[in-house]
Amino acid sequence: MDAKMILRMNAADHEISYANNSSFQKQVILKIRPIIEESITDAFKKIAPVCMKVADLGCSSGPNVFLAIWHILDTVHGICQQEQLKLPEFEVLLNDLPENDFNFVFKSIPGFYERLKKERGDMLQERCFIGGVAGSFYHRLFPTKSLHFVHSSYGIHWLSKVPVGLEDNKGNVYMARSSPPSVFKAYADQFQKDFTNFLSLRSEEIMPQGCMGVVQEADVDSFNVPHYTPCKEEIAEIVEREGSFDIKRLQVFEANPSAVLNREEQLHNQDLDFNVYLEMGKKTANGVRAISEPLLSSHFGDAVIDKLFKRYATHVADGLGNSKFHKLTTIVVSLTKK
Amino acid sequence: MDAKMILRMNAADHEISYANNSSFQKQVILKIRPIIEESITDAFKKIAPVCMKVADLGCSSGPNVFLAIWHILDTVHGICQQEQLKLPEFEVLLNDLPENDFNFVFKSIPGFYERLKKERGDMLQERCFIGGVAGSFYHRLFPTKSLHFVHSSYGIHWLSKVPVGLEDNKGNVYMARSSPPSVFKAYADQFQKDFTNFLSLRSEEIMPQGCMGVVQEADVDSFNVPHYTPCKEEIAEIVEREGSFDIKRLQVFEANPSAVLNREEQLHNQDLDFNVYLEMGKKTANGVRAISEPLLSSHFGDAVIDKLFKRYATHVADGLGNSKFHKLTTIVVSLTKK
Repeated sequence: MDAKMILRMNAADHEISYANNSSFQKQVILKIRPIIEESITDAFKKIAPVCMKVADLGCSSGPNVFLAIWHILDTVHGICQQEQLKLPEFEVLLNDLPENDFNFVFKSIPGFYERLKKERGDMLQERCFIGGVAGSFYHRLFPTKSLHFVHSSYGIHWLSKVPVGLEDNKGNVYMARSSPPSVFKAYADQFQKDFTNFLSLRSEEIMPQGCMGVVQEADVDSFNVPHYTPCKEEIAEIVEREGSFDIKRLQVFEANPSAVLNREEQLHNQDLDFNVYLEMGKKTANGVRAISEPLLSSHFGDAVIDKLFKRYATHVADGLGNSKFHKLTTIVVSLTKK
Repeated sequence: MDAKMILRMNAADHEISYANNSSFQKQVILKIRPIIEESITDAFKKIAPVCMKVADLGCSSGPNVFLAIWHILDTVHGICQQEQLKLPEFEVLLNDLPENDFNFVFKSIPGFYERLKKERGDMLQERCFIGGVAGSFYHRLFPTKSLHFVHSSYGIHWLSKVPVGLEDNKGNVYMARSSPPSVFKAYADQFQKDFTNFLSLRSEEIMPQGCMGVVQEADVDSFNVPHYTPCKEEIAEIVEREGSFDIKRLQVFEANPSAVLNREEQLHNQDLDFNVYLEMGKKTANGVRAISEPLLSSHFGDAVIDKLFKRYATHVADGLGNSKFHKLTTIVVSLTKK
């Protein structure tokens, strides 16, 4: 299966769209803001480009598309104001797979420019040029040494393809308790291969001293393929072995996957009405569906999807009633090109 | 009315889509190929960039999107082979308004890369990076002095907005025989303002010695607003007055607007069955509808569209039966930044 033809988030404008179900991803982007700020400050001060070229890999579609870009522009704008430097122009390129809903992304650009103008002024808005690049980040996307800063959030856990050697994984669609060790190894090997390839491709595209900030999901209980959730040590080892980047930061944190109640509230409200759990279960199911529907329906057909996610929502509600909350761990890594 | 919110070609995947009704535009792009080749050869030899940055303004969606890009890549590839020069990388940015069907464009990119690889080899394909930029070409679209070559075909006759001062044009939706002179002047003035603005914006974005090839439609019998079809002299005067570009070529030619019969066949077959004319009328109506439906339906509502184009198809068929063929004139202008 070639992941790049079917792997995409649900398109805009309906209830189960990724646009309406990505509040968790938003939390993560907000949480890592200080790390992005630090990286971008360093890159900007070292290179001081007349035009700063920034890429966001795996931008998807929906309200989060411009979140990281806003931080990046805002940070450089802040530095320039504080230190009375000339504000550079920005060429921003948003990337995702060709099947991504770029129409939604592009229709949001005028609104983004308006907000930028209103909140940060004409000068920043007039210097910001946004475009899109459709393609897999497991291939080259940009000209040689053309980028100053690369951002990627919640994308690298999607593998370039389903690993080979999963014949003994009957009955499972991903690594599961009943999977033999060979299946775990096949996934880990594929991630290592893909992430090394990712680093090597980006190192060709990024200028010396340019920076990269990559956020990586590690969702313990996912059922998606092709998908892999490495630990911190695996990431460090692959970066080191590939050799093009210095690790500036490698940090692990937990984030709250429920948009309805935070974890503390959940833990202290075990007597909540089951309807609340059902509602939360539905929200969680919508969130997972927005990410995985195209992938699942290409495997199993459209017919099963509604039923599947209704059942999934009930399982989540049951789990919540029994206080089985996800522990959702996120790894963020910030890299500088040697 | 802000043209940039409603002015777009019909989206892909249905009978009246622009993608299925743009064979005439294809003819024009093919016809001007020698002029594009000459411009691009000059620009490449003068600047010899490591990475050649090319923009196509008003790319629309459909099979023609990659036609001009193919010519540009192919020409430079040919020069490099012939003169044993190092092939540059290409950064190609396709532009249209935010409402354009960029999803269709981006989904066509993998196929374009495959064709490029198959017909021109790995080296050219691996050096080609395509992206999209959504926005009006009556605003800045790209960073300062960042482009080497700008191409635009059949776009500049669309004005930035409906001119002001059309109060005396009751009963018409465009310049018509019964329009007073003030209406013709209002359109001409708006074109002059818009085209001057276009030149001035592009001159900021194009590198010195960079080139621009603009193809301009002059359809005598159009009913679209906002739309203007200048004559050769008007274009020359505006370019000269704006002052940033030298005119390299300014050429007028006729092209055959009918995809079914060429004009000679039409003229020599006046005894053709009326059904043939009806078929041709329908094709012509589809072509015009693909271009103007979003614009018309925003004025008059969706309900009238089917009826309108059925009637239009019949009028065209009647006209063809009576040998009233369009004379469709095209102006191509090639400019070099001073």
